[in-house]
Amino acid sequence: MLTPGNSKIPQAKPYLAATALFRAGDDTPRAFLERCLEALAAWEPVIGAFVCTNVDGARTAADASSARWRAGKPLSAIDGMPVGVKDIIETADMPTQMGSPLFDGWQSGRDAASVAALREAGAVVLGKTVTTEFAATEPRGTRNPHDPARTPGGSSSGSAAAVAAGQVSAALGTQVVGSIIRPASYCGCVGFKPSVGAINRGGSHDWLSQSCTGVLGATLADAWQVASEIAARVGGDPGYPGLAGPLAPPPAARPVRLAVLETVGWPIASADAKTALADAVDRLAGQGVTILRRSAHPRLAAVEEGLVAAEPLSRDINAFESLWPLKSYRDRDAQKLSRALLARIPQADALGAEGYRRALAERARIRALFAALAGDCDACVTLSAPSAAPLGLQSTGNPVFTAITSLLGVPAVSLPLLVDQGLPLGLQVIGFAGGDAAAVAVAAWIMDALGDADA
Amino acid sequence: MLTPGNSKIPQAKPYLAATALFRAGDDTPRAFLERCLEALAAWEPVIGAFVCTNVDGARTAADASSARWRAGKPLSAIDGMPVGVKDIIETADMPTQMGSPLFDGWQSGRDAASVAALREAGAVVLGKTVTTEFAATEPRGTRNPHDPARTPGGSSSGSAAAVAAGQVSAALGTQVVGSIIRPASYCGCVGFKPSVGAINRGGSHDWLSQSCTGVLGATLADAWQVASEIAARVGGDPGYPGLAGPLAPPPAARPVRLAVLETVGWPIASADAKTALADAVDRLAGQGVTILRRSAHPRLAAVEEGLVAAEPLSRDINAFESLWPLKSYRDRDAQKLSRALLARIPQADALGAEGYRRALAERARIRALFAALAGDCDACVTLSAPSAAPLGLQSTGNPVFTAITSLLGVPAVSLPLLVDQGLPLGLQVIGFAGGDAAAVAVAAWIMDALGDADA
Repeated sequence: MLTPGNSKIPQAKPYLAATALFRAGDDTPRAFLERCLEALAAWEPVIGAFVCTNVDGARTAADASSARWRAGKPLSAIDGMPVGVKDIIETADMPTQMGSPLFDGWQSGRDAASVAALREAGAVVLGKTVTTEFAATEPRGTRNPHDPARTPGGSSSGSAAAVAAGQVSAALGTQVVGSIIRPASYCGCVGFKPSVGAINRGGSHDWLSQSCTGVLGATLADAWQVASEIAARVGGDPGYPGLAGPLAPPPAARPVRLAVLETVGWPIASADAKTALADAVDRLAGQGVTILRRSAHPRLAAVEEGLVAAEPLSRDINAFESLWPLKSYRDRDAQKLSRALLARIPQADALGAEGYRRALAERARIRALFAALAGDCDACVTLSAPSAAPLGLQSTGNPVFTAITSLLGVPAVSLPLLVDQGLPLGLQVIGFAGGDAAAVAVAAWIMDALGDADA
Repeated sequence: MLTPGNSKIPQAKPYLAATALFRAGDDTPRAFLERCLEALAAWEPVIGAFVCTNVDGARTAADASSARWRAGKPLSAIDGMPVGVKDIIETADMPTQMGSPLFDGWQSGRDAASVAALREAGAVVLGKTVTTEFAATEPRGTRNPHDPARTPGGSSSGSAAAVAAGQVSAALGTQVVGSIIRPASYCGCVGFKPSVGAINRGGSHDWLSQSCTGVLGATLADAWQVASEIAARVGGDPGYPGLAGPLAPPPAARPVRLAVLETVGWPIASADAKTALADAVDRLAGQGVTILRRSAHPRLAAVEEGLVAAEPLSRDINAFESLWPLKSYRDRDAQKLSRALLARIPQADALGAEGYRRALAERARIRALFAALAGDCDACVTLSAPSAAPLGLQSTGNPVFTAITSLLGVPAVSLPLLVDQGLPLGLQVIGFAGGDAAAVAVAAWIMDALGDADA
């Protein structure tokens, strides 16, 4: 059943590195886009990353960008970058269908904050990428470019697959449990989930308190630049200071101390995954980084204890916060909702408002535990997932390693540095709330330190 | 130009008090609705409170409610209550046009959280009430039922006018500067602006950090019950504990100490308004309440100093948080945006992300000053507006007395207890963050203590 495209190796298309050629006149954003369109033609029948595209609009935008680069006046460092937009985020020129038949063909009539900012920065919006149903758990058929028999992860399924296959250089994703870091891990691209509130979610239908908009990117630099260009134009969520840090990618910074987080996922991680992480940590130690481990560090052990509840607590909080609009959708047409989504309603009703308040208090307690660790280390490292992408499309995989940063609301980066069963696996770098630039600087150093041999 | 309806005195229609007759079989929600529809027919040509109505749907819902009351099984205390919904809030059965030609006929396809909860509680959604453009400052023609030559206030213009004219018993409003308390004051109904985050704003297009959903009501009890029934079903904003307090209206509670806030509005308040507030405060003192005044209370004086910046600081914060979607709307069709709204873009650009962060920090500082006052008094009182509704429809009036609670994020109630130029003027009762029930209990006592002679 595999098409010819499958015989190729997926190859991401870094953008920032390419812009030097635009300045020199040796390449153009339009030509860059055409190469993405070739990847689209070759890969789309295999992976199904897009819900819809606006190729004419993209070509027009790329031509305008080419003219700006030619004139030496790009609107930003990402002027001309082909990007995908997760279909939970509104676009004025394309429907926003949220992975739900309830929103077949629905037009919001406007660009979400993140999309408006991308266009203002000159980015070329190629299309809407497949999301699971309402960015929750029900898959919508996208396949992993490294093995179409496997899930790309989710909920930002299409964004990760499209970036990994070189159809775009970056794509917007959202994460409330594992939706950016997990698909980045499975597809072998970079994932950047910022601090909660760092990127304005206006017009994105991920309204939950742990949710945030983030970026899947061909490189860490691409991902950061997309995030920073958005935040510079439309800020963070209302009431939040917005992504803190420079517009350009933070320079690599060697960490003095890194903490290894095991999480409750460790016992179920594959043997190869454990070995790969252990080897990576050993190599970092070999380069002079002090490694903190739970066995020898009581504050870290306390964090691990708190994080045991990360996934069930996240599920409770998400379920209660999903009561709206779920009941409204159910009343419209329950047949068009998955069983998994419908099951959130009794879960939320069982929790109740008082249970929800207790869950928020418990989350705050765990966040405070983690914040106290900031004085002990520069960042934490762990796996992005317990294994490479599992076979089959019926699930988007286990989010046990990503629920922790979602609960904590802290920045996380997945770096395509590890290998499991010959397939990509992410090394996750976790920072502290508001310390997005610092976490990315550490991640950049780790990428440099480990990348040559493993990437 | 005035129609016959104008010769009548507007009369609100309390609902909770009427339900005893439903239980006794002496009245029905359907009959109650028909009386509202009579008021709609009589008043709508005069005041223009509604953008659209769904009379058939309302009658069907009222019949179902009548059957439930007959069977002794109402869904809630507000089962059958005719309500209006500010047209910034989504409804599945009616368009959501936000007071903007950019959204003429726009259908969101779903009920907002607050609307879904109202329907679940059995309330009868009669129609969408007029909002100023995007709940900002540009009026959309609604007139004050007490004098159609005057503004009803805004931005919840139609909600206040409809409640005051007895077209509905309560209506949803939103406030980010003065949009609930001011129109309540001008129209002579009760206004309840809860703590920020207390009522889920999902599907309401008031996404700013100071904004919140609240209620215009025929009585304080009606307003509280609507708010509490919503919060009980869909909670507060994600990440917030939601409206704290009982489902039923909090019993009246005599305050021991009340602080009088003057605000920067005092010098521009009308002579009658000042006298009316002074008389009211004197009568409360006469009933044994200790009155704190800025001249004798340094912490109160410090709060007043901080609140000098309430309106400009709110405007700055709102402008920056409005960059999205304003730029997106401007790019679609700038002709369809008012000059006042377009002017927010350069204001926000001038502020910049750094200026916004400073504004947030200053707001946090002033909130902390106010929170410190909680140990000194049970609530604060002040005017709801500097005067009765001004003549003309070109402005929704001065929000100087309401910007303070918007900036602070604290609960506020406007009680129709004062009179200026023979027209209604609200007495504002202000509580502390999260202390919504306590503030409403104090307001209920003040209503009882002063209501007989002045109402």
